[in-house]
Amino acid sequence: MTDRWHQENMRVQYKDTDQMGVVHHGNYVTWFEVSRTEWIRQHGFAYRKMEELGVLLPVLDITVQYKKSAHYDDCVAIFSKVTKYSPVRIEFCYEVRRISEDEFSQEIGETMEPFGELLATGTSKHMWVDRDWKPVRINKVAPEIYEILEKAMG
Amino acid sequence: MTDRWHQENMRVQYKDTDQMGVVHHGNYVTWFEVSRTEWIRQHGFAYRKMEELGVLLPVLDITVQYKKSAHYDDCVAIFSKVTKYSPVRIEFCYEVRRISEDEFSQEIGETMEPFGELLATGTSKHMWVDRDWKPVRINKVAPEIYEILEKAMG
Amino acid sequence: MTDRWHQENMRVQYKDTDQMGVVHHGNYVTWFEVSRTEWIRQHGFAYRKMEELGVLLPVLDITVQYKKSAHYDDCVAIFSKVTKYSPVRIEFCYEVRRISEDEFSQEIGETMEPFGELLATGTSKHMWVDRDWKPVRINKVAPEIYEILEKAMG
Amino acid sequence: MTDRWHQENMRVQYKDTDQMGVVHHGNYVTWFEVSRTEWIRQHGFAYRKMEELGVLLPVLDITVQYKKSAHYDDCVAIFSKVTKYSPVRIEFCYEVRRISEDEFSQEIGETMEPFGELLATGTSKHMWVDRDWKPVRINKVAPEIYEILEKAMG
Repeated sequence: MTDRWHQENMRVQYKDTDQMGVVHHGNYVTWFEVSRTEWIRQHGFAYRKMEELGVLLPVLDITVQYKKSAHYDDCVAIFSKVTKYSPVRIEFCYEVRRISEDEFSQEIGETMEPFGELLATGTSKHMWVDRDWKPVRINKVAPEIYEILEKAMG
Repeated sequence: MTDRWHQENMRVQYKDTDQMGVVHHGNYVTWFEVSRTEWIRQHGFAYRKMEELGVLLPVLDITVQYKKSAHYDDCVAIFSKVTKYSPVRIEFCYEVRRISEDEFSQEIGETMEPFGELLATGTSKHMWVDRDWKPVRINKVAPEIYEILEKAMG
Repeated sequence: MTDRWHQENMRVQYKDTDQMGVVHHGNYVTWFEVSRTEWIRQHGFAYRKMEELGVLLPVLDITVQYKKSAHYDDCVAIFSKVTKYSPVRIEFCYEVRRISEDEFSQEIGETMEPFGELLATGTSKHMWVDRDWKPVRINKVAPEIYEILEKAMG
Repeated sequence: MTDRWHQENMRVQYKDTDQMGVVHHGNYVTWFEVSRTEWIRQHGFAYRKMEELGVLLPVLDITVQYKKSAHYDDCVAIFSKVTKYSPVRIEFCYEVRRISEDEFSQEIGETMEPFGELLATGTSKHMWVDRDWKPVRINKVAPEIYEILEKAMG
């Protein structure tokens, strides 16, 4: 399995905070989503196009482990990578890290080693389904996606 | 025009607050939506059924005027009523008010006179469209809805 | 350990849906929060009062297992109960279930047996901290809360 | 008054969509917030630092006019500029526009002329207050901010 992580930078927005003065824990789940969407795009297929092919990738399971708080206006990087995949399922893991303003302004991309101060880790599991939410084998219904995945995971 | 307001009670949730210690201003727009959805249901047709008939009611215009802050765990009532309607458009106005725990536990319903401490007012304008987002005349494509509206506004 | 669940009813709102036509998975995390807040209130202390006493209860860990989709306008019940507690930590588990309009209009309260169509399950772990996010023993800093908890868990 | 707009690029996220298949109208209000926060940063003071000086800038009034829908994965630019300011108040206006992938990957910055397909316009009004939400004159309590504003507005 590849050890390359996709890095997606985010600036913490005011609406993400709660009255404890930190980022509300619910936001991490959508941060994961943004990072895995960009992981997919980076490897050559937009999630939007998958849906146009009639393939959806709903979430079966989410976990988040919170280590430290993120604060308003912090620069954070959401690192994601695929940890497991098959023609019927795919799993991602995530690390959310606080990074510096300098690191924030650098180009987003891939890294072998997540950097910055660890704020949270997490995982998500997904299943390929068709528009009627019936499970499908992605190598049958959209072989071009499975090929890209195999190549990415090399 | 009728002067009856629909009253929809809400408990302020933790996620609705921001680090100023108040409800983030963006939430009022979705509070309006909840109250107008229930206004519609109360008059005899669920918004869900409208969509099943192929009629959508997107928002054309929103205004919110903020007077006082709402805080975590506050009981608020979102009052809504229709201020204008035609076969092609409909307009709502809103009042968000802080109410007591006693008023919160009372039955939700209609009132002639919004009560409680005024926190915000607002308006929304909407247009009837079909699934392709083409404007439609509601009295033509779904006369049963227009009749209910005329009766409600009687 | 007690087997009583708190039941919190919610109507699925339009903003909770995504373009798959189902409730976006991120919303379940905040639904859990609403239900556990009301669990706490039902047992005699508002979470708001805990914060006024200088005690916060941040989330350490969240898991969600998605079984079936919730749809716009569905009536759902979020059942929650405490599964473990000590002077330093507390854990909750959750079940989200689709219920009927009749069940929705019934009084919210406690139940021995969650009912309705199971949509998702989940857990959350929390730690008591003070305003500086230092871990505290709740039986030392707020014995009245610990007593209520011991009584609730009987 | 200056005619320079700040341009803030955003990728439409899955969670921003609703079951109409478009971006839920409530998101525009928080998009405005992101763009005006970056307008402020670009002119030399972070909103975070303003709060550290004890100055808050709550929203008094919001309007949004919706022209066309944004869709999942669209690239949008939120243009913002100050239209009015005084020692006690400040007003912004906004344009949300769909831009191309190429325009999206360009550097974010300032422009004299918003470009792309117009999706929505809007305004927000704000008042300077202290930590107790008492109105303040910004040129008295934080002259360094007022100077920056005067310079920006030239």
